[in-house]
Amino acid sequence: MTIHIDIARMRAPRVPSGVADAEWQGLGERFAAAHAAVRARIASGAYGFADLASQDAEHQRMRAWAATTQGRYDDIVVLGIGGSALGAVMLRTALLPYGWNERHGAQRGGAPRLHIVDNVDPRSMAGLFDLIELSRTLFLVISKSGGTAETMAQYLYVRHRLDEQGLPASHHIAVITDPVAGVLRPVADRDGLPCFSVPANVGGRFSLFTPVAMLPAALAGIDTAALRAGAAAMATDCASDVLDANPAGQFAVLQWRAHARAGQSTHVLMPYSDALRGLAPWFVQLWAESLGKQDADGVHTGPTPLAALGATDQHSQVQLFMEGPIDKTVTFVTERERPLDLPIPALPGAPEGTSYLQGRTMGTLLDAEQSATADALAEMGRPSMAVSVDRCDPWHVGALAMWLMQATVLAGELYRVNPTNQPGVELGKRLAHQALAASAGRNR
Amino acid sequence: MTIHIDIARMRAPRVPSGVADAEWQGLGERFAAAHAAVRARIASGAYGFADLASQDAEHQRMRAWAATTQGRYDDIVVLGIGGSALGAVMLRTALLPYGWNERHGAQRGGAPRLHIVDNVDPRSMAGLFDLIELSRTLFLVISKSGGTAETMAQYLYVRHRLDEQGLPASHHIAVITDPVAGVLRPVADRDGLPCFSVPANVGGRFSLFTPVAMLPAALAGIDTAALRAGAAAMATDCASDVLDANPAGQFAVLQWRAHARAGQSTHVLMPYSDALRGLAPWFVQLWAESLGKQDADGVHTGPTPLAALGATDQHSQVQLFMEGPIDKTVTFVTERERPLDLPIPALPGAPEGTSYLQGRTMGTLLDAEQSATADALAEMGRPSMAVSVDRCDPWHVGALAMWLMQATVLAGELYRVNPTNQPGVELGKRLAHQALAASAGRNR
Repeated sequence: MTIHIDIARMRAPRVPSGVADAEWQGLGERFAAAHAAVRARIASGAYGFADLASQDAEHQRMRAWAATTQGRYDDIVVLGIGGSALGAVMLRTALLPYGWNERHGAQRGGAPRLHIVDNVDPRSMAGLFDLIELSRTLFLVISKSGGTAETMAQYLYVRHRLDEQGLPASHHIAVITDPVAGVLRPVADRDGLPCFSVPANVGGRFSLFTPVAMLPAALAGIDTAALRAGAAAMATDCASDVLDANPAGQFAVLQWRAHARAGQSTHVLMPYSDALRGLAPWFVQLWAESLGKQDADGVHTGPTPLAALGATDQHSQVQLFMEGPIDKTVTFVTERERPLDLPIPALPGAPEGTSYLQGRTMGTLLDAEQSATADALAEMGRPSMAVSVDRCDPWHVGALAMWLMQATVLAGELYRVNPTNQPGVELGKRLAHQALAASAGRNR
Repeated sequence: MTIHIDIARMRAPRVPSGVADAEWQGLGERFAAAHAAVRARIASGAYGFADLASQDAEHQRMRAWAATTQGRYDDIVVLGIGGSALGAVMLRTALLPYGWNERHGAQRGGAPRLHIVDNVDPRSMAGLFDLIELSRTLFLVISKSGGTAETMAQYLYVRHRLDEQGLPASHHIAVITDPVAGVLRPVADRDGLPCFSVPANVGGRFSLFTPVAMLPAALAGIDTAALRAGAAAMATDCASDVLDANPAGQFAVLQWRAHARAGQSTHVLMPYSDALRGLAPWFVQLWAESLGKQDADGVHTGPTPLAALGATDQHSQVQLFMEGPIDKTVTFVTERERPLDLPIPALPGAPEGTSYLQGRTMGTLLDAEQSATADALAEMGRPSMAVSVDRCDPWHVGALAMWLMQATVLAGELYRVNPTNQPGVELGKRLAHQALAASAGRNR
């Protein structure tokens, strides 16, 4: 298996609200039906994210182009929001060394810094422009349709600043958008902007392995081929129609069942790893936006995903998880091997009560805290599952991401919703558009 | 009022599950009882956070000491977790310019960078040590009892590294701990480490205005006197026993009532401001750890706080808020005045469909999106309230923080829990301690 999954603490009698042996068989049948439906949708081309091979050519073209930019930029700036930003944030946190941008702040001509501007707050945008040298910066404008208000506002501002300084847009802006549709491609074609495609059948929150996140990653020197290889291995695991052998199936079925049969509607993702902390907000979008909607009967449904971080949140949210309502599941994500660990030294004159720490390592402490939290939750009757990867490298990060995307579309079947749309945000967009258009009228 | 609160979208008939006029009176009585109980507890000294005046002397001493360090350090490193870290993170995000650490990465002898190491992941700690020059670094070791495993492990590691390089701990470590109790104070006294106090009656998540967060803020040049002045003004507002005049009362009562009477157990805090985004995770700890526990009848209770960010999360969590189960409230936080805004320029050859944006500003777009989201939520039958500050400065950030702390202890009365303890995390700590102690035995 590409990843290791321990579901012992999702099971009864260990956790009273968990799945009893007798129920597991029925869940296997439920899974098999959902799995068959997902395979049919993949075969019909509805879930483009699962078909990595069809994106090979574009990936190669993108990598080749990224290689040509070497040494040309000190700063890479992602202009994107939601699915156009969260993947790059996750990869930056997981796969670039700690403090990457601080480390590279001083030098010029080395590895570029990577900024992700995922909002339209003028303070951040102005702060960013104070920080960068425009002539040494590449902006990635990421919007599938070109209809994203925030990203288009950013684009207009950046384009204006480039024009002001007489810098050619074709050297400073690359576009990632739909292969055919949308309003950005004509602009890119007209102005000679480098342009990369998000396949029409891949939505924003499923776009990690397209240039949306692969291009910023490649520009920062991350091995995108390894990311995609890990994802492909996971996609193979997830083709299994046996629940015990299908990691996405186990996650989807256990989370859905906890919600549907035990009222556990809040699904916490809690990496015990600073590097993997960005996986949680990325998962939050995937799970919330894919499943939170009206089901086939018109019922408002969907779990509430929650991002947490171990051990940090033991001093924040864990009190609630332990003693609050039994309405949550927790999924831990850990690393089995650490290429680097630090000793907790034995010190003469150390503070009282720290002898149990001395001579251990920080990694050991982190692991002990994760196990202890899982056991304590079980003791308090709260379900959890533990997922681990052999190590935190591009291959395994790719596998984790594909795992959660595959689980999401399976959960879509179980919740009986379409996991690829987001009809609920249209009204807000329309009202904002109207208000701005009206203010335009007033200003004239 | 120190802040502006709009509760129209928490009310029926605008939002069907909201508070009808007839119910408001009864809630006022409920509030009055809770308020009286809180005032009595404040008078008895149980809620030290509310008594800022008693902390004046220590604040002055701390400020004076911080002033003596000017120019001596390039890096300030907070070693703390939970309440010892989240406040500093919030203040750094809100009150230091965007990209502060990147901006100051190159220079030496200017304003120091501020790092907050809130975990024991060895990768982060090793990465930090690659980034800093030990002889130009000040570590703040923050633990009230000195019994926090993570912080003590960090302390042992840092102390060892200083010893190795022959750097005197008294020049590179300051301690923030209990005035009398705990294991850190004797070490500080023995070794001449600068030491500042968290009053015995102020718990970690209520410690923002103590040296826990004030010292890192002061060292980075933030005006801590203004922070405390805003908090004091808010504390005065919150002394009112009239619900309509008490901002903490309105928040506490409306959130509790939404949970108790409408099943809205998830409470989202959603600043529409990059600067205020750190307020949300700080609030999550406050609300989760204070209220998530067994109530006076032994019932497992407590709302689930959720952090969000506008406009960013319109492309992530908002789909769930709009169309998922009606089990959430949303509280928006916005800035009324922006000292800085950026135009969205009108551009020849701009992409189709962007004319409604051109000629507006980014601030206007952000504000329009917040209003539109609130209206759309109401249209879909989902309650929200909107809080705004005149501007994002130390005074108003201090006011916001005091507002949420006062609301939390009021909510403690309504939920009938003790908001200052966290009994549920003890079991996990004990199990981790046992596992580590046992591994020590095996290693011998």
